[in-house]
Amino acid sequence: MSSIDAALTEVATAVTNTLDRLLPAPVGAEKRVIEAMRYACLGGGKRIRPFLVVAGSRLFDVHEESSHRVAAAIEMVHCYSLVHDDLPAMDDSDLRRGRATVHKKFDEATAVLAGDGLLTLAFEVVGDAATHENPAVRTELVLALAKAAGVAGMVGGQMIDLEAEHARLDIGAITRLQRMKTGALIAFSCSAGAILGQASEQARHALVNYAHDLGLAFQIADDLLDYVGNEATTGKPVGADQEAGKATFVALLGIDRAREQAQLLARQAAGHLDLFGEKADLLRAMAHFVVDRKH
Amino acid sequence: MSSIDAALTEVATAVTNTLDRLLPAPVGAEKRVIEAMRYACLGGGKRIRPFLVVAGSRLFDVHEESSHRVAAAIEMVHCYSLVHDDLPAMDDSDLRRGRATVHKKFDEATAVLAGDGLLTLAFEVVGDAATHENPAVRTELVLALAKAAGVAGMVGGQMIDLEAEHARLDIGAITRLQRMKTGALIAFSCSAGAILGQASEQARHALVNYAHDLGLAFQIADDLLDYVGNEATTGKPVGADQEAGKATFVALLGIDRAREQAQLLARQAAGHLDLFGEKADLLRAMAHFVVDRKH
Repeated sequence: MSSIDAALTEVATAVTNTLDRLLPAPVGAEKRVIEAMRYACLGGGKRIRPFLVVAGSRLFDVHEESSHRVAAAIEMVHCYSLVHDDLPAMDDSDLRRGRATVHKKFDEATAVLAGDGLLTLAFEVVGDAATHENPAVRTELVLALAKAAGVAGMVGGQMIDLEAEHARLDIGAITRLQRMKTGALIAFSCSAGAILGQASEQARHALVNYAHDLGLAFQIADDLLDYVGNEATTGKPVGADQEAGKATFVALLGIDRAREQAQLLARQAAGHLDLFGEKADLLRAMAHFVVDRKH
Repeated sequence: MSSIDAALTEVATAVTNTLDRLLPAPVGAEKRVIEAMRYACLGGGKRIRPFLVVAGSRLFDVHEESSHRVAAAIEMVHCYSLVHDDLPAMDDSDLRRGRATVHKKFDEATAVLAGDGLLTLAFEVVGDAATHENPAVRTELVLALAKAAGVAGMVGGQMIDLEAEHARLDIGAITRLQRMKTGALIAFSCSAGAILGQASEQARHALVNYAHDLGLAFQIADDLLDYVGNEATTGKPVGADQEAGKATFVALLGIDRAREQAQLLARQAAGHLDLFGEKADLLRAMAHFVVDRKH
């Protein structure tokens, strides 16, 4: 196991434990929605966003309880977006991470509510004093999370993605779509440690640039997996984007140029981290991991 | 026009203007979801929750820009919950405030996303420095809003409400359901001014008690309107709860006892405000308004 694999596994385990602790226990007449929230968050996943939070936080010697809580909150937002995106009215997916999607396992109404509950809980977790003793840091996190997840970020990106089924997007439009749909939350994941550590402007700027390139590299790699991956390793049907006639980086650039572009972006991302020295080795390794991963 | 009607109209106008200002402009490839968010928030409504925020804030001489922003954020959360509750998988309603519901006017996917966008924007608005100069006040608001809107509040209450179609609830279970589904957000609306004004424990306690009784009175009145209201004034089909065989206060208590109970709760709510003197007259009038309203 390479050191990045080991580090990913370590963070995934820690953040899954944190999620398990922060999600309510499934009791009371409302327990069905809590079971669905837990099912959505605790069923695996690579935990790439939590890893970025934790690795970024280590640059500034942030307390692990703080970074784990923010990582868990971001993962809740990520999981809520998957639950809603999988709904029949949206991408209509039956399978996610090799298991039935939430609306298949439970039902549509419960899936809508579970997503709503996860999004709301994410803000509760970030806003809680246990996340950081300084309320100015907590509100900065709340604001950045809301901007990344909202209509200028993830929600807006998903809207454009749905509309893209009826429109031909060029490379500029697809880049904007992906910056909003997946890039904004990845960027917040990379910046969260700098906010928690009240880092310098220069350090924040470097992480924003890193996140920018990493996010695009990540999305191109994701598109490539849809074309050349296989269902057993990705845990979801292959070729779904292709079948839906969706404009993706691969459709526009072709497989070879998309692969080159992803590699270039990964190198570029790693290059932004020079000022952190070897403390940033994990984040550098992550940039290469996201484009080399097989699932 | 009575003074409470005039005050409601004044606050509704001010908060609608604030909503209009805080909601993004419908531009860009994502504009469909922004149009849906604006449609959901700007199409009327009594603005009872914003009124509670503004009237409660006046007790502590809170700056109006602060109270209007928090009022707008709470209304966004209320409107998001209506958009999601109206979905075919949930209550399947075609009509709301006399107009097509969001999924009818747009489509289901857009309605899910518009709700998500509104919930997220509410936290952005509350977390923004323009809401209050003290970040400790802003995080307290974020935390209270998340608790009221989440699985221990509104989301959990809606889950129980859906489950109630298959279960017989007794008066205790219905009271818990309503405290969560509508009571929690009403309670936050009543407390927001005390948080913004950094009020004493005693003042906060009085407002929590007021909110407690007001919330129940409000819900019983709502159930009564479903039985005896008419579609033209309520703007939604009458008898929907009855038809769905839902357990409501009216189904359990009968119309006469439900009416008495609502009146009793309204008087009790008003009684909690003695320490504020005549400064609380609007909140007292509100308690009677919610049980006497015809829509």
